Amino acid sequence: MSAATFRRELDSVPAGGGEPGLVVAGEEAGAGATDAALDRFLAAGARHGRSLEHRQLWSALGEASEGGKRLRPALFHSVYLALGGRDADVAAEVGAALELLHTALVIHDDVIDGDTVRRGQPNVVGSFADAALAGGHDAERATHYGQTAAILTGDLALAGAVRTLALCGAEPATVARMLDLLDRALHLSAAGELTDVRLSLEGDGEEREVIAMEHQKTAVYSFELPLQLAATLADAEAPVTEDLTRFAQLLGVVYQVRDDLDGMFGDEAVTGKSSASDLREGKMTALMAHARTTDAWPRIRPLLGAGTADDDDVALVRALLEECGARDHVEALADDLSRQAMASVAHLPQAPLLHEWVRTVGERVGAR
Amino acid sequence: MSAATFRRELDSVPAGGGEPGLVVAGEEAGAGATDAALDRFLAAGARHGRSLEHRQLWSALGEASEGGKRLRPALFHSVYLALGGRDADVAAEVGAALELLHTALVIHDDVIDGDTVRRGQPNVVGSFADAALAGGHDAERATHYGQTAAILTGDLALAGAVRTLALCGAEPATVARMLDLLDRALHLSAAGELTDVRLSLEGDGEEREVIAMEHQKTAVYSFELPLQLAATLADAEAPVTEDLTRFAQLLGVVYQVRDDLDGMFGDEAVTGKSSASDLREGKMTALMAHARTTDAWPRIRPLLGAGTADDDDVALVRALLEECGARDHVEALADDLSRQAMASVAHLPQAPLLHEWVRTVGERVGAR
Repeated sequence: MSAATFRRELDSVPAGGGEPGLVVAGEEAGAGATDAALDRFLAAGARHGRSLEHRQLWSALGEASEGGKRLRPALFHSVYLALGGRDADVAAEVGAALELLHTALVIHDDVIDGDTVRRGQPNVVGSFADAALAGGHDAERATHYGQTAAILTGDLALAGAVRTLALCGAEPATVARMLDLLDRALHLSAAGELTDVRLSLEGDGEEREVIAMEHQKTAVYSFELPLQLAATLADAEAPVTEDLTRFAQLLGVVYQVRDDLDGMFGDEAVTGKSSASDLREGKMTALMAHARTTDAWPRIRPLLGAGTADDDDVALVRALLEECGARDHVEALADDLSRQAMASVAHLPQAPLLHEWVRTVGERVGAR
Repeated sequence: MSAATFRRELDSVPAGGGEPGLVVAGEEAGAGATDAALDRFLAAGARHGRSLEHRQLWSALGEASEGGKRLRPALFHSVYLALGGRDADVAAEVGAALELLHTALVIHDDVIDGDTVRRGQPNVVGSFADAALAGGHDAERATHYGQTAAILTGDLALAGAVRTLALCGAEPATVARMLDLLDRALHLSAAGELTDVRLSLEGDGEEREVIAMEHQKTAVYSFELPLQLAATLADAEAPVTEDLTRFAQLLGVVYQVRDDLDGMFGDEAVTGKSSASDLREGKMTALMAHARTTDAWPRIRPLLGAGTADDDDVALVRALLEECGARDHVEALADDLSRQAMASVAHLPQAPLLHEWVRTVGERVGAR
C-alpha cells in the first residue's frame, strides 16, 4: 500500500459519507482553515528565494499539497471540536502541519516506488523529468533530474511540517508534546517504508508482518497522529486519549485492509488505481499474505513483482484470490476490525462522530 | 562541490589552524556540548521503535552524524561566546541542530550524486546496499534498497534538526527567528542543489552562476546560518548581525573556491577526495567556469562528465587549467575574497577570532 493511496481513495468518497452532518461539519471547518494556513505557509516560503530553481521547487510543493480532501486535517479538526477544543487559529496550523507531513511522505514515497504519475497527472518526479526531456536530455538523466527535484521538494515539505507544528501558537509544553507525537509518527513511517521495500525485495511476509508494516508506514501518521494531536491540544483526560489512540489503531488497520481489497477488486474508475499496479510492484498485501498460506500460491507467486502483469494476469490473480479464500478472509477481517473499532469508543460522548469515521474509512468502494 | 566536502576537507585541518587558542577554545567548548546534545537526541529517538528497520535507520543516522569535526557547531559556538552569549544549554542544542541539518543534507546529496562511499567507507546508501547484496539480491535492487534507506535516514535527520532547534529552550520569539533562519538556509540549499544538477546536466554555467549555486547549496547553511544563529541567540545589535552576515557570505565563497581548487589540485592523501571525481561527475566548478571562456575549453569539455576520466585525463586537465590561467584566476579570487572577508570585520572586537576562521577555511591544503 502506498502512503498516497489514502488520499487518492478518500478523494473518491462522497463528502460526509453515510450520515451527512457530522463529518461534513468537521471537514468543512477543517478544510477552509487548513487551506488558509497552507496558503500562509506557501506565501512565507516564497520569500526565501528568487532563483528559478527555488520558484520551481516551491510551486511543485504548492501543487503537490493541493487537490486532496485534507482527510488528516479533517479527522483532527472534527475530533478536536468534538472534544471541546475551540482554538481555531492553532487548530488551523496543526491541520496544515498534518497535510504537509502527508505531502512530504507521498513525494518521497513516489521517488522510492519509481512512480512518475499520480491520478493521471505527472507527479513531482514526472513533471521535472518531462521538462528535462523537453530540453533534449535522455530518459535516464531526465529521471535523475526529476528524482532530485522530488527529494528536495519533499525535504521542504517535511521541514515545513515540523516548523508549522512548532510555531502553531499553543503553549510551549503542549507544542513539545505534539512535536514528540509527530516525531514518533515519522519514525514509524520511515521504518515501515523500509520494511515495505524489504518485503517486496524478498517477495515474502506473513500476514501479521505485512499488517504491522502497513500500520507503521501509513496508519500511524494518518490516523493515530491526528487523533493524538486532537486529544493533546484539547487537553483531553488520559483515559480518553488512550481510548482514542486504540480506536485510531483499529481504524488504521481497517483502512489498510480495505485499501488492499480495493487495490485488487475495486473498480478502477472509482479507486483511480490500476488493479495491476500492486501486482506489478510486487506489493506484499494482506491478500497476498493470506494467499501465501494456501495451495494457490505457486500460481500467484510468479505473477507478483514480475513487472509484466497484463489484464489477463490480473483477472487470473483475482480469481485465484477468491478461490483460495483470501478475499473472504480479508473482507471478514475488515468487518471484524470495523466492529472492534466501533465498540472501542461506544462509551464515549464522541461515539457518533467516531462511528461515522469508521463507516467512511471502512466502506467497500463498490458500496459507495 | 558536494555539500559533504566541507566536512571531509575540514576533517583534515589540524585543530585550531594557524593560531591555536581562539578557534580551539570555540571548537572544544562546542564539540563536547554538541556531542552530548546529539547523544540525547539519539537516545530520545531510539524510544520510538523496536523494529529491526527502525534500529537500522537510527543507527545509520548515528553513524552518519559521528566522526565529523563539528565545524558548523564550532563556528556557531565560538562566535556566540565571542558575542557574550552564555547560555551553554541552549547553545548545545543549537549546535546539535546545525550538525543534524548538515548530516541530512550530506545523506540526501549522496543519494542525488549516486555516491556509495564517503572517506573510504560505505555511506548510508552503500552500507544498506551491501547488506542487500550479501542477501543475494542483484546490484540494481540492492542500490534501490540503499537509496531508500538513505532517503529515510536523511528525512529523520532533517526533521530532527528542525525539532531540536524548536525545542532548544530559548525564548519563543528567539526560537521563531532562529527557525526562520534555518528555513531560509534549507530553501537556498535545496534550490542550489537543483541548480547544481541542472548545470551538470547542461555542462554549462558562467562563473557568476556557478559561484551563486555553490553559495546557495553549501555556504548559506554552513557559514551564514551558524553566524546568524549566534548573533540572534546572543541578541547582538542589528549592525553587528549585518556585518557578521556579510562576513559569512564572503567566508562561504572563500571556502567554495578553495574547495574547487583542492578538488582539482589538492593532494588526495590530504583532501581524501579523488581529483578525478569532480571531473567524472561533470561538476561545474569555478575553475571550469573560467576555463569555458578560454581557448582550452574545446580540449577540456569532452573530458568533463564523461564518467571515464583516468589519471592521464586528470593530468591533462590539470595542465590545461594551469595553462589557460584558470588556476591563477581562482587562486587570486580566493586570496582577494579572504582579504575582503578580513577587512569586513576588522572594526569588530571579535576580529581576531573571525580572522582565524578565514585562515582556517581559506588556507591551501598544500600549505597545511
